[in-house]
Amino acid sequence: MVAATASLDTLCINSIRMLAVDAINKSNSGHPGLPMGCAPMGYALWDKFLRHNPKNPKWFNRDRFVLSAGHGCMLVYALLHLTGYESVSIEDIKQFRQWGSKTPGHPETFETPGVEVTTGPLGAGISNAVGLAIAEAHLAAKFNKPDASIVDHYTYVVMGDGCNQEGISSEACSLAGHLKLGKLIALYDDNRITIDGRTDVSFTEDVLKRYEAYGWHVQHVQDGDTDCDSIEKAIEIAKSVKDQPSIIKVSTTIGYGSPNKSDTAGVHGAPLGAEETELTRQKLGWTYEAFEVPDEVYNHFRQAVQRGSDLESSWNQDLAKYKNKYPKEAAEFERMVRGELPQGWDKDLPSYTSLDKGLASRKHSQICLGSLGPHLPELIGGSADLTHSNYTDIKGETGSFQAHSPEKRYLHFGVREHAMAAILNGIAYHNSGLIPYGGTFLVFADYMRGSMRLSALSELGVIYVLTHDSIGVGEDGPTHQPIETIPSLRAIPNMLVFRPGDGNETSGAYKIAIKNRNRPSALCLSRQGMANQANSSIDKVSLGGYVLEDCEGTPELILIGTGTELDLCVQAAKTLTEEGHKVRVVSMPCIELFEEQAESYKEEVLPSNIRKRMVVEAAESFGWHKYIGLDGDSVTMSRFGASAPGGTCMKQFGFTVENVISKSKKLLS
Amino acid sequence: MVAATASLDTLCINSIRMLAVDAINKSNSGHPGLPMGCAPMGYALWDKFLRHNPKNPKWFNRDRFVLSAGHGCMLVYALLHLTGYESVSIEDIKQFRQWGSKTPGHPETFETPGVEVTTGPLGAGISNAVGLAIAEAHLAAKFNKPDASIVDHYTYVVMGDGCNQEGISSEACSLAGHLKLGKLIALYDDNRITIDGRTDVSFTEDVLKRYEAYGWHVQHVQDGDTDCDSIEKAIEIAKSVKDQPSIIKVSTTIGYGSPNKSDTAGVHGAPLGAEETELTRQKLGWTYEAFEVPDEVYNHFRQAVQRGSDLESSWNQDLAKYKNKYPKEAAEFERMVRGELPQGWDKDLPSYTSLDKGLASRKHSQICLGSLGPHLPELIGGSADLTHSNYTDIKGETGSFQAHSPEKRYLHFGVREHAMAAILNGIAYHNSGLIPYGGTFLVFADYMRGSMRLSALSELGVIYVLTHDSIGVGEDGPTHQPIETIPSLRAIPNMLVFRPGDGNETSGAYKIAIKNRNRPSALCLSRQGMANQANSSIDKVSLGGYVLEDCEGTPELILIGTGTELDLCVQAAKTLTEEGHKVRVVSMPCIELFEEQAESYKEEVLPSNIRKRMVVEAAESFGWHKYIGLDGDSVTMSRFGASAPGGTCMKQFGFTVENVISKSKKLLS
Repeated sequence: MVAATASLDTLCINSIRMLAVDAINKSNSGHPGLPMGCAPMGYALWDKFLRHNPKNPKWFNRDRFVLSAGHGCMLVYALLHLTGYESVSIEDIKQFRQWGSKTPGHPETFETPGVEVTTGPLGAGISNAVGLAIAEAHLAAKFNKPDASIVDHYTYVVMGDGCNQEGISSEACSLAGHLKLGKLIALYDDNRITIDGRTDVSFTEDVLKRYEAYGWHVQHVQDGDTDCDSIEKAIEIAKSVKDQPSIIKVSTTIGYGSPNKSDTAGVHGAPLGAEETELTRQKLGWTYEAFEVPDEVYNHFRQAVQRGSDLESSWNQDLAKYKNKYPKEAAEFERMVRGELPQGWDKDLPSYTSLDKGLASRKHSQICLGSLGPHLPELIGGSADLTHSNYTDIKGETGSFQAHSPEKRYLHFGVREHAMAAILNGIAYHNSGLIPYGGTFLVFADYMRGSMRLSALSELGVIYVLTHDSIGVGEDGPTHQPIETIPSLRAIPNMLVFRPGDGNETSGAYKIAIKNRNRPSALCLSRQGMANQANSSIDKVSLGGYVLEDCEGTPELILIGTGTELDLCVQAAKTLTEEGHKVRVVSMPCIELFEEQAESYKEEVLPSNIRKRMVVEAAESFGWHKYIGLDGDSVTMSRFGASAPGGTCMKQFGFTVENVISKSKKLLS
Repeated sequence: MVAATASLDTLCINSIRMLAVDAINKSNSGHPGLPMGCAPMGYALWDKFLRHNPKNPKWFNRDRFVLSAGHGCMLVYALLHLTGYESVSIEDIKQFRQWGSKTPGHPETFETPGVEVTTGPLGAGISNAVGLAIAEAHLAAKFNKPDASIVDHYTYVVMGDGCNQEGISSEACSLAGHLKLGKLIALYDDNRITIDGRTDVSFTEDVLKRYEAYGWHVQHVQDGDTDCDSIEKAIEIAKSVKDQPSIIKVSTTIGYGSPNKSDTAGVHGAPLGAEETELTRQKLGWTYEAFEVPDEVYNHFRQAVQRGSDLESSWNQDLAKYKNKYPKEAAEFERMVRGELPQGWDKDLPSYTSLDKGLASRKHSQICLGSLGPHLPELIGGSADLTHSNYTDIKGETGSFQAHSPEKRYLHFGVREHAMAAILNGIAYHNSGLIPYGGTFLVFADYMRGSMRLSALSELGVIYVLTHDSIGVGEDGPTHQPIETIPSLRAIPNMLVFRPGDGNETSGAYKIAIKNRNRPSALCLSRQGMANQANSSIDKVSLGGYVLEDCEGTPELILIGTGTELDLCVQAAKTLTEEGHKVRVVSMPCIELFEEQAESYKEEVLPSNIRKRMVVEAAESFGWHKYIGLDGDSVTMSRFGASAPGGTCMKQFGFTVENVISKSKKLLS
């Protein structure tokens, strides 16, 4: 019986390998090396440990599985297919990497139910997994009771050498160790091959020792190619370690089974081809057709369906008991999981009149967070070590998410911007209603841009609080003064970039950001104060741009402003009007939302026959010509800033009412 | 005598502290905590070890000093001033953080001679230092002879907790360990405070153990506040370790000397203020006026001037001997240090006719590197583990820069994009004529954008080889397909972004990139093939944009194309011309260079009265309205891509001759 079981295990493992080989051959594109090498750990994990329900990929309490080495996506597609997910049929596998298929070249959550995290950019997946584990720990601490537990799952990761070389994973794993995230378990596919060849050309550090330094529990499985027992034992041990995240280095052979290509970079990212596939079949003793899966393999893998159904039923019973005992908490839990915002969540968002004292928009942001906090228990976030500069704290709350206090919702990310963004993504990927936000200086959006892009691509409602948004930063100088950062964020598809011009617009930006659970928002906020406008509007922020001040009749000139420069437009317009000009001021806090409005509205705000238009924004003009065209002008930046008091910088670079008036007159003449 | 020396040492150290306190008080802005805490290690290093010549900050063989924790810049300004650099007078220190001063809020190479590296963005400085150490090791291996050595210096770094949290430093230091850069010595200011408070809120890893895992030599000085002897001994030991980089953790008290603010986050980034300054004076026994430096301190520190002069003289003698014995090598060394390119360096850059087989521009790039390599020994670079995708190899060369072969010029950076960019910057900062280049996929420019920005800000002639430049990437899908990356690079000031449209334009881009030693170039190159154009030109790339195909008389329509889409414009124009339209095709390989041309030339290429203009580029249209205005149109991307064969993607997203013709006709009608 033992031999028979072993043989079935091997058949199962080889099914994963050969599905990968066949799919990649058929598409003539893809990465067979990882799925062939990681098939044993994938099998061990999914068959013996992973608590999931193939018939309900969204079952809340499932274990999360992240393939951080996303290029090995055929491993996931094979496992999803074999364990019975409807999202990946054998036909889908035959459509690997084809237009419109469920099996794209890297795992994408928005294409394939069952894929928990969009991966491909290396190091991001393990960092997202830290976010998933934080979400689980937080919700467990928040909702579970001594006599009733409804949140309880592991987060498993398969990562490769590439993931371990990327700095983002160093940041995230250092924080995971600090936070003692015991239910995070990473399997490190140590195959000693990267694209440039053997890892010894660039990567000879002692990885496990590094993880030990982070505070992780570490293990090493010497033979990950055939020794499934050891993999299983290691996962058992990792599960039993509750106060440390775990990494299991599993030494494998990339492309295991391919007689001529295994253990070479050649099998990393290219199809085996017909001849080598034949040799691989022989080597593995694989007698089946391409895309054929033996019945006994299906029968075995698909026990996952019954197991999953039982798991979910059992959890549903737990939930029912919980609801009975803790109806209030259960209602909140279920509301969050449904992704519903609570009644009146925005009722304390402040509004302002022009008589209210002008504040920095980072300060307005802090007031918004303070007003939202009590009504939105799902709001969770923090700062990359700039809490008292970004003002990302939630007024009235004390303490932070730590190993001993995971119920707290303030996160000290440390000086780790890239990990912060990836962790925020991970919290969003958890799909439990949590609304993640994180702050840093706007200029350091560059440090986390890789993961900000993934927020947008993967449709995650992360809120980025980006303060110190221009040369107004002042003395810290050009390394800290964003010039091109706002335009470069606006260039990212599916991201809302706000630059609110006063208190009302900051409230409006938050209102929209909170509601947008399927795309990220970047709030670009000032260090320095700005006046509150008489005609600004919380609600009109949703239009992206609107007429803030208008003249009688047809304007001769339209001034378009954002953020701290909006008031320059208003002041300049006032003087120009007094001098007899007809000037309109358009506030444009969010270009993306303006673009989404009906053509008629856009035409109303910016009539196409009015060509004398000027934008005023303390950033690169890049992107603004869409509105000012060939005939307009701008008061913007065309070089890096300088170290001097903020007011001096603004003046030296031309951000004065006088200069706006003077350039306006040139345009009008 | 021992007591007297100790007292003078203390006086010297306190001079650094109080200059920082006074300057920051006067500017009412800055970071006193670090210079007060690091004054002892700064003093020990600069007074006892640093080989430099204050009267010639550019002396080639000087040790390099990098303040990675750039916010502590008053440490450097104080040391530059005290040791006699003319760039930082006491008046300059009084102008700390003011408009036009030599003492900006973070160290900037382009403002202050003696500052080796522009720092502020955390983690970047230590990573630049790895580049400096690589440059030194390479040049030493290349030029030094058993009987004559002309390249021989250390690279010293002061880094903080923030630097150690940033992933970029993890990447760079892992590589430094792999490369066994024995002449890199980092002093880690372990003050256990970051902006959010004590490091124990987010950073409790065992830093030294991590560095041990990287292969570094590690030491710990327990009392960095007063125990200068131990600091000196540790540096001595570090210098003696030749086959490992060294890190010395120096435990200090942030803001040492301030009775109420030391050891708190409050002293990190805010002036002490009058009252606390008075208390600090008392505590330190400092009896001098603000900005007053005791004569004995000047006398002691300024021995550096004579030492430096002697060091340079002695080196000049070594160089003279070397020239005598090795005139050919000496000539090359001196040429490189002068920053001169060799005669005929570009003579083998290939040119093409339309009859030549079309290739991917990444392939053209490989041919360019192969043609430049033999003539430009100063060309040094590699890839972030994508050598055979980026084609960054230099044809005919074998081997790579490794611990045992630093004379080689190919760098395997590993999967470490951010460190790659910082290391390339470091090589450029070395100012020894080396021309650094590095490759990755264009979409992963996001991972290294923080350091790309610093290339531009700090005026470094780094060449970025960014392949796989559009949805043409194909099957790897949207995580790997740049959409917004090209526009977002174009938004960076002082960076040349090239997207060559064929072989000639690729040669032209290299020709300009090599010559531009004071600004970076980003080459955006295709994965897929493209035709060679009949009228493309190597030389016209320097104009940024030029008329590639023209009609008789005044054009009705101008098509603007780049990269793989240029040929779509040419083909569409051909058909439209046959149908009787007057169409001009403008190739625009580099917007930044086009912007630099005379208005008359720009008007010639894009006459302002011709408003029917269409841009064709497989990227976001963001930024192109500067040329197409309100009346033009574009065939561009407005969403993320998809996983499918590249040709399918191109077709599905409208990048076909037919679609260009169809949209052109709409514009013409």
